[in-house]
Amino acid sequence: MVDTAARPKAPASVTKAAESVAKADTGPITVPGQPGAPRVDLEKLGRQLLGTWADVRLASRELTARPEMQRIEGQSMDEQRERVFGQLKLLVDNGQVLRAFPKRLGGLEDHGGNIAAFEEMVTADPSLQIKSGVQWGLFAAAILHLGTDYHHETFLPDTMSLKVPGAFAMTETGHGSDVASIATTATYDEKKQQFVISTPFRGAWKDYLGNAAKHGTAAVVFAQLVTQGINHGVHAFYVPIRNAKGGFLKGIGGEDDGLKGGLNGIDNGRLHFTDVRVPRANLLNRYGDVAEDGTYTSPIASPGRRFFTMLGTLVQGRVSLDGAATQAAAVALKIAVTYATQRRQFTAASDTDEEVLLDYQRHQRRLIPRIATVYAQTFAHDDFLVKFDAVFSGKADTDDDRQDLETLAAALKPLSTWNALDTIQEAREACGGAGFLAENRFVGLHQDLDVYATFEGDNNVLLQLVSKRLLTDYSKQFAKADAGALARYVVAQAADRAYHGTGLRGLGQTISDFGSTRRSVSELRNPNTQRELLTDRVETMIAEVGARLRDSRKLSKKDAAALFNSQQNELIEAARAHGELLQWESFTKALDKTTDAGTHQVLTWLRDLFGLGLIEKHLAWYLINGRLSPKRAQAVTAYIDRLIARLRPHALDLVDAFGYKPEHIRASIASGAEQMRQDEARAYFAEQRASGTAPIDEKTLIKKSR
Amino acid sequence: MVDTAARPKAPASVTKAAESVAKADTGPITVPGQPGAPRVDLEKLGRQLLGTWADVRLASRELTARPEMQRIEGQSMDEQRERVFGQLKLLVDNGQVLRAFPKRLGGLEDHGGNIAAFEEMVTADPSLQIKSGVQWGLFAAAILHLGTDYHHETFLPDTMSLKVPGAFAMTETGHGSDVASIATTATYDEKKQQFVISTPFRGAWKDYLGNAAKHGTAAVVFAQLVTQGINHGVHAFYVPIRNAKGGFLKGIGGEDDGLKGGLNGIDNGRLHFTDVRVPRANLLNRYGDVAEDGTYTSPIASPGRRFFTMLGTLVQGRVSLDGAATQAAAVALKIAVTYATQRRQFTAASDTDEEVLLDYQRHQRRLIPRIATVYAQTFAHDDFLVKFDAVFSGKADTDDDRQDLETLAAALKPLSTWNALDTIQEAREACGGAGFLAENRFVGLHQDLDVYATFEGDNNVLLQLVSKRLLTDYSKQFAKADAGALARYVVAQAADRAYHGTGLRGLGQTISDFGSTRRSVSELRNPNTQRELLTDRVETMIAEVGARLRDSRKLSKKDAAALFNSQQNELIEAARAHGELLQWESFTKALDKTTDAGTHQVLTWLRDLFGLGLIEKHLAWYLINGRLSPKRAQAVTAYIDRLIARLRPHALDLVDAFGYKPEHIRASIASGAEQMRQDEARAYFAEQRASGTAPIDEKTLIKKSR
Repeated sequence: MVDTAARPKAPASVTKAAESVAKADTGPITVPGQPGAPRVDLEKLGRQLLGTWADVRLASRELTARPEMQRIEGQSMDEQRERVFGQLKLLVDNGQVLRAFPKRLGGLEDHGGNIAAFEEMVTADPSLQIKSGVQWGLFAAAILHLGTDYHHETFLPDTMSLKVPGAFAMTETGHGSDVASIATTATYDEKKQQFVISTPFRGAWKDYLGNAAKHGTAAVVFAQLVTQGINHGVHAFYVPIRNAKGGFLKGIGGEDDGLKGGLNGIDNGRLHFTDVRVPRANLLNRYGDVAEDGTYTSPIASPGRRFFTMLGTLVQGRVSLDGAATQAAAVALKIAVTYATQRRQFTAASDTDEEVLLDYQRHQRRLIPRIATVYAQTFAHDDFLVKFDAVFSGKADTDDDRQDLETLAAALKPLSTWNALDTIQEAREACGGAGFLAENRFVGLHQDLDVYATFEGDNNVLLQLVSKRLLTDYSKQFAKADAGALARYVVAQAADRAYHGTGLRGLGQTISDFGSTRRSVSELRNPNTQRELLTDRVETMIAEVGARLRDSRKLSKKDAAALFNSQQNELIEAARAHGELLQWESFTKALDKTTDAGTHQVLTWLRDLFGLGLIEKHLAWYLINGRLSPKRAQAVTAYIDRLIARLRPHALDLVDAFGYKPEHIRASIASGAEQMRQDEARAYFAEQRASGTAPIDEKTLIKKSR
Repeated sequence: MVDTAARPKAPASVTKAAESVAKADTGPITVPGQPGAPRVDLEKLGRQLLGTWADVRLASRELTARPEMQRIEGQSMDEQRERVFGQLKLLVDNGQVLRAFPKRLGGLEDHGGNIAAFEEMVTADPSLQIKSGVQWGLFAAAILHLGTDYHHETFLPDTMSLKVPGAFAMTETGHGSDVASIATTATYDEKKQQFVISTPFRGAWKDYLGNAAKHGTAAVVFAQLVTQGINHGVHAFYVPIRNAKGGFLKGIGGEDDGLKGGLNGIDNGRLHFTDVRVPRANLLNRYGDVAEDGTYTSPIASPGRRFFTMLGTLVQGRVSLDGAATQAAAVALKIAVTYATQRRQFTAASDTDEEVLLDYQRHQRRLIPRIATVYAQTFAHDDFLVKFDAVFSGKADTDDDRQDLETLAAALKPLSTWNALDTIQEAREACGGAGFLAENRFVGLHQDLDVYATFEGDNNVLLQLVSKRLLTDYSKQFAKADAGALARYVVAQAADRAYHGTGLRGLGQTISDFGSTRRSVSELRNPNTQRELLTDRVETMIAEVGARLRDSRKLSKKDAAALFNSQQNELIEAARAHGELLQWESFTKALDKTTDAGTHQVLTWLRDLFGLGLIEKHLAWYLINGRLSPKRAQAVTAYIDRLIARLRPHALDLVDAFGYKPEHIRASIASGAEQMRQDEARAYFAEQRASGTAPIDEKTLIKKSR
């Protein structure tokens, strides 16, 4: 036998950290329904999650609950394309998708509600969401936002009614992320008062365009506008591409992009143009016009600003991807958490009862932090949508507002689309072989959502945009600063932190952090501590890179590029940290609006889990930079373990609160079938034990014979 | 203008770290071909990567290069199933898949070569790999390894020739990972000398079985063997399931699992049994037999050991998944790196030339460390296969050998299958929209490989097995130890570290680490330092958990389970760290066999990148536990940046060395088409510039007019 006094001990620091976390805890883990246990108010929380356009979302969910709007697994590409195209016609009849258009044309001029309704489509079929996005969110929206009255009157009604399905011909085989460098040209011919559109080489072919392979009869084509020998940059043109019989018009050709990893309900394809002529009036001329004699004019003098303003009007694509990706992740979690509360595997704690999956610590670690992330994204998305609505309705649409909106889009869309893929994959694996069956939804969602990470702006490129904005803000602050100003800034920052009461330590002070872990946990629970830690990391990373890049103005273009490139990875990480901070802020703001006490308590734990999870992910940074002592860093992980255990009893409520009905979920493993199987198996063995008909286990015999 | 003296500076520590890393460097980044630049010897490296069964692999690759063996994208499920079934017949004609079978039945008794040949199939079509795995690696292999002469003579020839396609009926709807708890029973009837097979409730139905939905006419069914009222645990039975016309035999029913996320060339399905009778001789009786009178005998007295021995004979599934997953990741990297060296986007360093993607730091960070991981996996897999061959050929098959092999399988298969998914996804995103087209392979590979993470043992469950083995080893060391023994162990460990010269510091010494970053880098490059850091983490994590679990023997089963569960996540992380260490060791061992100097230099960088990448991933642990000072931790990341930049010129060589031919790669973006498009576009613009026909850029005009 082992002498207990002699047993190896865990390092004192670790044991102490765990004990102190337990002591610092606000109470035991309670099960909902027990006296004194908090419980979420499902109805109120559900309403809060639906956000600002709750009723619009509910109306849209009635539509997505209808079988005729939903994906049928296993259809061929051609069948999927036809089905989704048919569904688009149903959407027109329903009218939801036309909310953003002018009232005089039958719309509601409701920009936020339009996106809310539209992103709900993802639960029916992501192909439906994206194909309708191509038609009304890109093709028609380009006419709306880049065109003027003539275009609205002439082209919009038929695009709204789907009489003219259209492609949004921006991306080329050779240029995706770098739109400014597309090679298609639209050269003005004064004599005929026409634009001549050409794709001069294979890389200039328009590519990956929804509606281009089959259904589109027109396109908004983006091309370099050349008049009087001058290239005025990228502009958009309305170009008919197919005749009534579906054949290409003169000078136009194309190819089918064929089978894709997902979204096969959309007919993506390529288009090329050989001296295709369109009338001068087909230039969508809100931000740049060409007179009969070829004279170019624009309300925006700077070609750079003009380009970004034009592209900025199309930000709704990114808005809706952020929302749709968040919903797809929520659906995946609803399925996986439901299954994890019914499915049993391995007996551990008893001889007869197998454990429910979600009672395993690892399973909790896999799923519960992801619930926290999806909540953060849901709240951040609603704030994002409110901002979008303010800009597009004209309530608040200064240049700064528009730039803020674009930065927000570039920060949030990458995080939510990546997280959707990660969450769906983890949920799929958490359901084992059953998770791999098409009937259980995960694999289809992953396949369709995959491309969300690179379309409407490659995620890495978008994050780089965010980091450039952060750098600009930083350098504005110091452009004319002397060493004294910087020192004052640093002092102010420190004072700010002191004000928030977090007591962050500088590098030199790490070793003097002898505070108890218990106090550490109390501080980590403080939202101001979390905010400061998250904010500090973004600021410091940007400041460090900014300082390293300061010399670049004096360098040759080549050397400056090399210097910038040497910081690219760090910049993208800083941008990601910025996006995470925005999500955390939205979650924290949402807590202020949560009136029910039980819900508030559970959501506070969930927000803490989200915030501390971000800090844990970057723990090495906090340690290296002296923001957390090793002891405090240990407390982060120990407290996360505690939070997860505490949230376990609420996990099912938290995913139920997303409010999806069985018609939206449609996964057989989340239908109750697993619970029935478990009940049947347990009843069978219970009856065997009761009746004494169970065979004797050989292992039991051996034990007895010893 | 900004006064340079006044510009904010990066924190001194960071700047210094970067500078010191540069100084500690062994030389400038050189381009292969430059004088003095190392260059890999492609042929020698290729041969080394092919490993111990190089010629077998090359022969198998000739087969997988044939179009009739390859997947056709976009086929319906039924078409895929028929195609793959037809390909299986071609495999029989070729004979490679029969290498493992007895010589007297036409095999070669070549176990390692058999797996090597078999896992190469993944480049043709993962469905082909898995469907042939079901037939010969599971169904026929169960007859071979669990049966005796009678079964070999009676059943093997027809399974080898595919005259009898069969299912491996182990998993049930209700039990996947916990095979010991399956509920199907085989009850011996002495009177008729038959086993009666039954699935007593829905959860006991056999599920997810390849060949069950359509092609299988027999199955090896795993069931609880009950005789004379005693349950002797899980045994395997040969059971005919369908008649010549494809109808189920009496008492047997089934369902089609339908469409899956991938691998739709395999007809997975369910089987259920209602009092299905098979002759007594159909028990595969190598490890347990029932006499005519119902008496049970077994060469292995312990039911637990008997169960694990039986399952252990089926380890080849995990071996081949490890190899196949590694190959799929290699194919994905070959495609993405090729594209990244041809594709250009954004002008940064010049006014005319766009940058090649792989020259962006972020793109390098995304792809180059993954090359290092696939190399580590490739070398680790060959060591694994050698071990497997030794056990299965009988060269070294003690109980310890078998247990080591199983632990190796449980450690490596999770890492390589997860890494394949991660790498394929990153590669897909790194190729943007083109990466989402089915013709470019990523999406199909991801869809097919998805389930590798949960079949043949759920990855998390496997890692838990590894951690239990590590814990057992740990507790064996201290089972009878007193405090003095532990202290001596700790001293010995420390001495061992001192011998290796890494100078790791204890917790109290962190603050005294004032060594220069330059010296840190020199130390980090030392393989002994890397080994010590990686080993130390595994040992310490296991020791800590072991200490925390020490009391569990005194607890009730329920409390002991709760205590163990509280450590589950940490244990699984420790097991992962153990697997990573094994991969690192194999990579390091491979360096000893690398004779070409240039190759050795480049592979050393790659191994360092792999090792330091692992350390960087867990940097917080090393900091919290005082194994690395903050300064040294910074040096890790700074040196990784340097290594990646240094490996950049070799990236294409490193993926070319995998040795796949265009017929194996089959991705249009890696076919040279992108290079042609880039050349065409660049020639077009060069010619415009030369002839003066380019339109003037409006931006240029504005600059001139200022």
